[in-house]
Amino acid sequence: MGLGLGALLKAGGLAGTDYDSIVSINIFIALLCSCIVIGHLLEGNRWVNESITALVMGLITGGVILLVTNGTNSRILVFSEDLFFIYLLPPIIFNAGFQVKKKQFFRNFMTIILFGAVGTLISFVIITLGAMGLFKKLDVGPLELGDYLAIGAIFSATDSVCTLQVLNQDETPLLYSLVFGEGVVNDATSVVLFNAIENLDIGHFDALVLLNFIGKFLYLFFTSTILGVAAGLFSAFIIKKLCFARHSTDREVAIMMLMAYLSYMLSVLLDLSGILTVFFCGIVMSHYTWHNVTESSRITTKHSFATLSFIAEIFLFLYVGMDALDIEKWRLASSSPKKPIALSAIILGLVMVGRAAFVFPLSFLSNLSKKEARPKISFRQQIIIWWAGLMRGAVSIALAYNKFTASGHTAVRVNAIMITSTVIVVLFSTMVFGLLTKPLLSLLIPPRPGLTMSSQLSSQSILDPLLGSLLGSDFDVGQTTPQYNLQYILTAPTRSVHRLWRKFDDRFMRPVFGGRGFVPFVPGSPVERSAPESHLGTVTEAENS
Amino acid sequence: MGLGLGALLKAGGLAGTDYDSIVSINIFIALLCSCIVIGHLLEGNRWVNESITALVMGLITGGVILLVTNGTNSRILVFSEDLFFIYLLPPIIFNAGFQVKKKQFFRNFMTIILFGAVGTLISFVIITLGAMGLFKKLDVGPLELGDYLAIGAIFSATDSVCTLQVLNQDETPLLYSLVFGEGVVNDATSVVLFNAIENLDIGHFDALVLLNFIGKFLYLFFTSTILGVAAGLFSAFIIKKLCFARHSTDREVAIMMLMAYLSYMLSVLLDLSGILTVFFCGIVMSHYTWHNVTESSRITTKHSFATLSFIAEIFLFLYVGMDALDIEKWRLASSSPKKPIALSAIILGLVMVGRAAFVFPLSFLSNLSKKEARPKISFRQQIIIWWAGLMRGAVSIALAYNKFTASGHTAVRVNAIMITSTVIVVLFSTMVFGLLTKPLLSLLIPPRPGLTMSSQLSSQSILDPLLGSLLGSDFDVGQTTPQYNLQYILTAPTRSVHRLWRKFDDRFMRPVFGGRGFVPFVPGSPVERSAPESHLGTVTEAENS
Repeated sequence: MGLGLGALLKAGGLAGTDYDSIVSINIFIALLCSCIVIGHLLEGNRWVNESITALVMGLITGGVILLVTNGTNSRILVFSEDLFFIYLLPPIIFNAGFQVKKKQFFRNFMTIILFGAVGTLISFVIITLGAMGLFKKLDVGPLELGDYLAIGAIFSATDSVCTLQVLNQDETPLLYSLVFGEGVVNDATSVVLFNAIENLDIGHFDALVLLNFIGKFLYLFFTSTILGVAAGLFSAFIIKKLCFARHSTDREVAIMMLMAYLSYMLSVLLDLSGILTVFFCGIVMSHYTWHNVTESSRITTKHSFATLSFIAEIFLFLYVGMDALDIEKWRLASSSPKKPIALSAIILGLVMVGRAAFVFPLSFLSNLSKKEARPKISFRQQIIIWWAGLMRGAVSIALAYNKFTASGHTAVRVNAIMITSTVIVVLFSTMVFGLLTKPLLSLLIPPRPGLTMSSQLSSQSILDPLLGSLLGSDFDVGQTTPQYNLQYILTAPTRSVHRLWRKFDDRFMRPVFGGRGFVPFVPGSPVERSAPESHLGTVTEAENS
Repeated sequence: MGLGLGALLKAGGLAGTDYDSIVSINIFIALLCSCIVIGHLLEGNRWVNESITALVMGLITGGVILLVTNGTNSRILVFSEDLFFIYLLPPIIFNAGFQVKKKQFFRNFMTIILFGAVGTLISFVIITLGAMGLFKKLDVGPLELGDYLAIGAIFSATDSVCTLQVLNQDETPLLYSLVFGEGVVNDATSVVLFNAIENLDIGHFDALVLLNFIGKFLYLFFTSTILGVAAGLFSAFIIKKLCFARHSTDREVAIMMLMAYLSYMLSVLLDLSGILTVFFCGIVMSHYTWHNVTESSRITTKHSFATLSFIAEIFLFLYVGMDALDIEKWRLASSSPKKPIALSAIILGLVMVGRAAFVFPLSFLSNLSKKEARPKISFRQQIIIWWAGLMRGAVSIALAYNKFTASGHTAVRVNAIMITSTVIVVLFSTMVFGLLTKPLLSLLIPPRPGLTMSSQLSSQSILDPLLGSLLGSDFDVGQTTPQYNLQYILTAPTRSVHRLWRKFDDRFMRPVFGGRGFVPFVPGSPVERSAPESHLGTVTEAENS
């Protein structure tokens, strides 16, 4: 009985969903479908990507609703942080961890931490100081020190989702792993920053406060990571032990989905960084759990996680676009229409300066510490890293709403101005910077004749034959002679770390938690049973990526 | 930035989700995981199935929460019709349509309509009249005619979800299609019933009212079906035309998911039967759309729809179990503790009588109309049909909440008694009838030596060689001689209908909307590219089921 739900709702006046909500859901799903179709049709386009399509569609829909309702309302759904943090963000970040090229990520691990932790702090300080200096001249309204610090935090929060849209993992693996990895670590930094700002005694800023800050960051980073890794390992363990495989693909997929989501929600519950947790849960699941399930489960999880993430991303941009035209805020801020625009211009400038202030020096530092054999971050690549991280997205909007409104509404003028400025910054950075990224990429890294951009940018592994040989490290790593081993340790410590990890993994982890080659092959459907050779092909292919 | 969400929420006092909700979500997901694991461990058990596990786990959790909160609260989440009708029900019913054995369903189409429409009405009348006669003796409280009619509707609403759990499509295809199909048609009948009750002028019940009623039912049945079919065909058309396949599996899967959900929500918006719509959308999608996508998309959709449905089902039973111990209602009703129990016993009796009153006569009618060659519904099968449809579930609870409470709360004693009685009926019927179904099945239809139950019960297609030959109707159907054709039309009209449909399908539908054999094979991942023969195997296998 689906049963006159519309009628029931109209009559019953139920809490939560009403007739209007059903209309909204219909419009929203129809818009999602159109975004996917239009995104597909524009696939070959040089400028546009799916996120920009969704943003524009959202803006247009918001405009149409404004016209239809005679300027009283532009929002189909009220922006809700819960919707964003509880439903949209987890699948996106989990999928990013699940599909990330693990080797690339861990090879650049130290640089990523440097960018994500130190870089975010530098950017935060510059934006806060800049805002304190420049906003006063504009006579925006009464802003306190706490507000300026919040502005610093809001606009130094990288939007990992935008990065995913702008850079392509296959075409620019190094840049992708650096910028996206930075975004993930940025999350942990932001949590610490936010808590620190709330408890800050401004009079007493000294070495002890800084030490305390660093300590908290390390605590948060490690607990969040450990929680994610533990959740991933636990899922691998129960699936391996219980041998779901022999009975039901659906159970395996359900367990993987639920455990991933549980890791995120647990992390949120414990006031840790949910993004870090679910990202590492995704990495561990793709390394162990994914190999313990049937072939049908592998295909299903790989694609359904990607699909959920895809839908969540489009939803998000559609939402931001639609929310941008919310009339209430604009009306409040419109007594001084130029202010939000001036303010956004200042903020955009500060964001660009703040990012430049850490990308170039830290890249220099990172290059200094690298030995000859390792690839350095070229200046052109540094420009792209700087550029690709300039976008601000739904995270900034969610934070701004949290800081400057109560439940999405505000009656104070200065708050309305801050919200509208944030929306302008997000729209401008996502659309203009987003549109220019593809052309910038092909300008700075022109595809050489006979060489695709992809092979050129991922050529690090070709430049580095020692690392290249480790890719297929199913071979016995102990075959190299001891002297060589010692030499490797001296010249390339990360390579030795990787080697030691492989040994540890093969000897202790995989026998317990499963993983490639440590679980007997179990076909899940007649497809696999009739062609077992083909899966080995996929497995190897997926692992090597 | 997942960012101190807990802290933010605690500090900000956001509308909607708060710290408690995050705790609830964590507990709920952990419970879902345990239900899946326990359900897996009990797999071989003769009595228990996953739904009963979830119900019991829900009851236990409710009890624990009662103890922990000192009897003030047993519900983690407040029961919400929206959650049920908008999020849990659509994936379950869509998946049922997507995976249903289409031949079995359409072969018994007339019987299903008979059971679902006429049967529901008979059951409704008997329960309403019985309640009017018997409740007065119990002195329950002031109930009006409208209340009795509502009670009739609440307890004649079949719970399709319970049926899915109790009967197995592979073991008892005929019974499954009859009982489940009845449940789907029952939905359309219930919508009409509900609207009729609201607008009923009790003084003037005559042939005109009945005719009006029948007209409305037919209108609703056809519009809902057409909407579902149209949504399915539309998805097939755009996927075929746009050739997503060549670019992205994720887009195809996303489009299929969103279109299916859109069909349900549109149906709800238009006050039609969402269940009927989404069920037919599932059937059409599995017949056309599913064949237009890549092999990876096929595997992904098949398993991810099943997984979503699986999670929704467990969620539902867990929820009902947890809700059963809601202390507020029990306290209100507890001034007369025996009444709800007496009431539930009466209702259960009426449900059994009401169902017997239409299953046996209508089966007799259905058998009468069948020609020699067609299998009849044996008496033993009739008993199972009667039994398997006795369960009442979340639909009844949702309706009872809608009728007897305001937003899940009630202060009137008679309403509290009605709610508690409904909960008792649901728990008793699901657990006791559910537990006894497996043993009853093996008692009434003992597996013959050398013959599994599955092959015995699905032996209709073996008994019916003519139909059997149609299973592989990729062969040219025109090869039989004209005389034979005429004879078929006289003796077995449904077979000719099927044959005509196949011709129509092959000539007009498939060239436009795609479908098996009408879309060039497009491999979506290296698995398929390396072993193209194997897919043809799956496709055929899936189609024949």
